[in-house]
Amino acid sequence: MPAVDLRLYLVTDRSLSLGRSLPEVVESAVRGGVTLVQLREKEADSRDFYQLALALKQLLRPYHVPLIINDRLDIALAVDADGIHIGQSDLPYPVVRQLLGKEKIIGLSVESLSDAALANQWDVDYIAISPVYATPTKTDTAPALGLEGVRAIKELSVHPIVGIGGITQDNAADIIRAGADGIAIVSGIMSAPDPEKAAREFRNRIDKTQELYLTDYR
Amino acid sequence: MPAVDLRLYLVTDRSLSLGRSLPEVVESAVRGGVTLVQLREKEADSRDFYQLALALKQLLRPYHVPLIINDRLDIALAVDADGIHIGQSDLPYPVVRQLLGKEKIIGLSVESLSDAALANQWDVDYIAISPVYATPTKTDTAPALGLEGVRAIKELSVHPIVGIGGITQDNAADIIRAGADGIAIVSGIMSAPDPEKAAREFRNRIDKTQELYLTDYR
Repeated sequence: MPAVDLRLYLVTDRSLSLGRSLPEVVESAVRGGVTLVQLREKEADSRDFYQLALALKQLLRPYHVPLIINDRLDIALAVDADGIHIGQSDLPYPVVRQLLGKEKIIGLSVESLSDAALANQWDVDYIAISPVYATPTKTDTAPALGLEGVRAIKELSVHPIVGIGGITQDNAADIIRAGADGIAIVSGIMSAPDPEKAAREFRNRIDKTQELYLTDYR
Repeated sequence: MPAVDLRLYLVTDRSLSLGRSLPEVVESAVRGGVTLVQLREKEADSRDFYQLALALKQLLRPYHVPLIINDRLDIALAVDADGIHIGQSDLPYPVVRQLLGKEKIIGLSVESLSDAALANQWDVDYIAISPVYATPTKTDTAPALGLEGVRAIKELSVHPIVGIGGITQDNAADIIRAGADGIAIVSGIMSAPDPEKAAREFRNRIDKTQELYLTDYR
């Protein structure tokens, strides 16, 4: 399995792109410092999802930014994506790993300490703590875990951790300080007037916090 | 590729099952003479779809009735289903064949003569003419092709043909006479007070018509 740079993880949502095309927003965000992109499409039919995934794969290749597909293993296989992100209502992790192989990235959303404990028995590439804060972006989320939740899961998990849900420029550093290896952003980039600038600002906050944090503990 | 018995093809729709469980209706229908079952789930999350597919696969095995998954190649792979049915808005046929392999059944919906002509270049296992008649079961369908459409597609297609859409006990024989190898039924079985009896009646009509039809042309 590849090591994944989780620092700034963009999760797409076309409905939040303010009328701009998805490739346009994604490319701008990647120029600003996004390290990983997840294509999330809950309404698209399979053909549209496939075409979008193909377009993003081609777009991201020169930037060496991996493309992760949300939920749909068939789309990930069809475009030979770098990996898949699954939640607790998607295909079971062992089934996905078997079909996708050991070389691909598999991320798993955890919504509780017990989800995180269960994930310890699996060779997932990262877990996403979801949601850290309450968020209007996803309507089917579990209760917010907060910074306490991030710390507690960091304590017990053997996997790299990314936080998602309600993360803004103002609280991004807190999540890194609580132990996350990165943050996942939806509306904070998708709906930003200038996605490149927003991504650069997030990256600066993350990188500075990680430097300080690592220095503190040296 | 296996030869497929298309005579009476049940396409599931849980919302039409009158409160009965899907396995209950499917098993009853299979006892009545259904030769092929397609699990169609447009609203279920991936985990539920997977669990349902596993349950149907186990249920159908002793009856030697193949299980086909609608659209979702990942679910078909995950449960090692007998095949997949794709429409014009699903993954492209060549991609599906490559990922699923030569041993599995792949059916394709065609909504026009030109779709049927295009399918001639592919080694699909059957095509479904959709819809033969206007139907309330699916809301996203193309204009009804009618018996004229069935005859025209039968004329030009190199593949086995099943008709779907608005098929009832009263018009089932017409579709076979127009050249279809079988009929696909949703509400006519899913919503029947006695699915086994409804399936048996469909089978009798099909089998009788096919005997006569074959006799006529001998």
